[in-house]
Amino acid sequence: MASSKHDLVAALTDVVGARNVLLGADIGDHYRTDIINKYNCAPDCVVRPASTEEVSGIMKAAYAAGVPVTVIGGQTGTAGGAIASPGGIALSLERMNAIEEIDTVSMTMTVQAGCVLQIAQEAAEEKHAFLPLDIGARGSAMIGGVIGTNAGGNRVLRWGMTRDMVLGLEVVLADGAIVSSLTKMLKDNAGYSWKQLLIGSEGTLGVVTRAVLRLRPQPTSNQTALVATDSFDDAARLLRDLEVSLGGRLSSYELIWGDFYSAMTETQLSVRPRPLATGRAFYILLEMLGGDAEHDPAEFQRALEAAMESGLVVDAVIAQSDRERQGLWAVREDFAPFLANFKPFISYDVSMGLVDMPRFVGESQRRLATAFPGCQAMFYGHAGDGNLHILFHMGPDTAAREKEVDKVVYEVVRAVNGSIAAEHAVGVSRAQFLGMSRSDAELSLMRKIKDALDPKHILNPGKVLT
Amino acid sequence: MASSKHDLVAALTDVVGARNVLLGADIGDHYRTDIINKYNCAPDCVVRPASTEEVSGIMKAAYAAGVPVTVIGGQTGTAGGAIASPGGIALSLERMNAIEEIDTVSMTMTVQAGCVLQIAQEAAEEKHAFLPLDIGARGSAMIGGVIGTNAGGNRVLRWGMTRDMVLGLEVVLADGAIVSSLTKMLKDNAGYSWKQLLIGSEGTLGVVTRAVLRLRPQPTSNQTALVATDSFDDAARLLRDLEVSLGGRLSSYELIWGDFYSAMTETQLSVRPRPLATGRAFYILLEMLGGDAEHDPAEFQRALEAAMESGLVVDAVIAQSDRERQGLWAVREDFAPFLANFKPFISYDVSMGLVDMPRFVGESQRRLATAFPGCQAMFYGHAGDGNLHILFHMGPDTAAREKEVDKVVYEVVRAVNGSIAAEHAVGVSRAQFLGMSRSDAELSLMRKIKDALDPKHILNPGKVLT
Repeated sequence: MASSKHDLVAALTDVVGARNVLLGADIGDHYRTDIINKYNCAPDCVVRPASTEEVSGIMKAAYAAGVPVTVIGGQTGTAGGAIASPGGIALSLERMNAIEEIDTVSMTMTVQAGCVLQIAQEAAEEKHAFLPLDIGARGSAMIGGVIGTNAGGNRVLRWGMTRDMVLGLEVVLADGAIVSSLTKMLKDNAGYSWKQLLIGSEGTLGVVTRAVLRLRPQPTSNQTALVATDSFDDAARLLRDLEVSLGGRLSSYELIWGDFYSAMTETQLSVRPRPLATGRAFYILLEMLGGDAEHDPAEFQRALEAAMESGLVVDAVIAQSDRERQGLWAVREDFAPFLANFKPFISYDVSMGLVDMPRFVGESQRRLATAFPGCQAMFYGHAGDGNLHILFHMGPDTAAREKEVDKVVYEVVRAVNGSIAAEHAVGVSRAQFLGMSRSDAELSLMRKIKDALDPKHILNPGKVLT
Repeated sequence: MASSKHDLVAALTDVVGARNVLLGADIGDHYRTDIINKYNCAPDCVVRPASTEEVSGIMKAAYAAGVPVTVIGGQTGTAGGAIASPGGIALSLERMNAIEEIDTVSMTMTVQAGCVLQIAQEAAEEKHAFLPLDIGARGSAMIGGVIGTNAGGNRVLRWGMTRDMVLGLEVVLADGAIVSSLTKMLKDNAGYSWKQLLIGSEGTLGVVTRAVLRLRPQPTSNQTALVATDSFDDAARLLRDLEVSLGGRLSSYELIWGDFYSAMTETQLSVRPRPLATGRAFYILLEMLGGDAEHDPAEFQRALEAAMESGLVVDAVIAQSDRERQGLWAVREDFAPFLANFKPFISYDVSMGLVDMPRFVGESQRRLATAFPGCQAMFYGHAGDGNLHILFHMGPDTAAREKEVDKVVYEVVRAVNGSIAAEHAVGVSRAQFLGMSRSDAELSLMRKIKDALDPKHILNPGKVLT
């Protein structure tokens, strides 16, 4: 935004009005950074449209000027995908936060991109409907960001990723064209699925403005347990057994390696006792969401008893109340006390076929210990989805050596034909490593698509593809 | 394939050998037509590669010569999508029919595009795994065609469309580039999902050569019932109630309008008695696939009893044996006796939000009766997915007036913001009507994608986009 900056600002002001074009000192801190404060970069200008037409007007002006545009939202992404480019426009959809319709017959919600996920979840609940998408950042992440990153979370095992819940989509392309298909169909093969292409493209192919999300009937019973197994094989067999015996009602299968279970629960001891004794190889948090509050508890218990009788499960506790359920989830999610002594840290979000998971973990541990003596690497994740998170720490040097650590981890990802970005997006932090998960032919195909849809490369440059 | 035909045939022969390049009279009838014999068109040449590399060689030769290539498979599509272009090459993947791996830990199957769906289903079953994709053409449709058309079927309600089961994909692009990502991840956000873009593109963006499909543990119990309701509202409410009470185990919800139930069962009377009396507004075939053979029957019965007590269901029969189950499915699937007196006919495959279905049916019936006095239109479909099929007949004139009938039906589809192609593809028969489901902006975006991936428009020309 150099010489023509004045003209561009005038054009943007024409579109959204002066009070919705923020410049210089008027740009608040929350527009300048993200949750991990690592990819801080001040945009020259923040624009806050109130409608799809205004987004279109903004993109037309940016396209004419050849100025980069980055959509910003809840700013709780971990890959730096929503950090504006230097000299670029930050496009905030915070004013487009309406829930336009909840259709309880079709079971759909039509929502604007700036609506916060939790608000959408609660709105569904009020209508006795259920938006199964759930992630830790539910209170900040906006629907547009959730779609842009194809967010996953704890219930992918049963209900899939964000892409599985987006029935209709509206986007604005780089040149300002509005492409709208706010339909409610579960089945729709009328032409290429540009919708699926745009989902997960992290604002580099178009700006998501509205969507129709698929809802489900609200489950009426929730069974939660923490169980332990003595081997990875047992954990993998238990997953398949429970998928059969719980008949599709298994909604979470969160695997925690024994050492991480010890460490997490150790730091939580002042708040809650350990639900199960340490010393087992694996701990698994199980959730079954059902529709028969009277009979579901007995069925869940029967399935776990069968797993204990067969020897797959060696220890188990079933939550008997909401409070106990929250206590079991805390083992997996209450990171703060653990991280207090485990920072700085680097986190990874990788995936692979379940069959390759033990090899991946063993090989990663071996290579990391060799390359970074004294480091600590903790493994946990959504094992039911082949998705692992890793927390890595090696004292104060951690951040300085991040790229070296990345390289070691991603080499092992490549060796198991896995993904360097399972559910947390590529953003800037993983863009240079995309070739560890994608062949040259794939990258070339992605570039062809990028060139076709955003020929001037103004949409979120530097993200996903370098 | 005019002047340079000799050179092209020589190039193809170099790639696959003389016995796998069929010309003239050597081209068997099954390469020339499809199941409905409506889009008959003889290819100049049939090529039968045995590997992805050979497919690449064929595409390179075709690309250099600028000659159209149409992938042909089981030839049981209903939209003419696999009919070769005049002067073009028919690429048959029948020799690439291997199941390369079944991984029962990751629950995946790696399979070549020429494998017939039923063979893949049976191979999974042998390993106690389950490929939930199931369509009427299972015995002929090949995996490549199933992926190319994003096939749906009777169990989409629970397990989704083909695109929800494709974890890894390998394609050959128009210029012969091999793009391969035979991965096993359920979660993978490493870059643009070219996989999702290619799925359902009907051979117009690339040639599917191999895929990794997601398997599920084999359900161990199967409950089937036929029930009747007195109104569409009741049928819609029943669907949502059962989704809750059966807790995700509801796998089919097939709705049949009362008049069609009468007509279908009437023609089947010599083979089987009517499972339920006629006279109700709607009949619904229900299937629950569970994992607890001991307790599932009681649960299913309890759910149906609750639906009868609440008045939603006014008549019901539960299958007590495999034979009875087949009898109930026959009501929905044994079309032959009915069609004997209902031909020629035109069939439609449309979808919409469930909330719009009664309006769509009412309006279609009204407009069809006005435009085509004496016509008959029968409605049935996968209501759980918002997917309706229509059978239309008006005596011997039916075929001659097809385009007029199309127009009437698709105008109503447009009015409800629905899809003209839910699960049976666009092919040639629906290509000219794509604008009834898609805006100009969407069509323009699709053309950009087509131009980027197939700049010479040699891949299956005339299909999907006109």
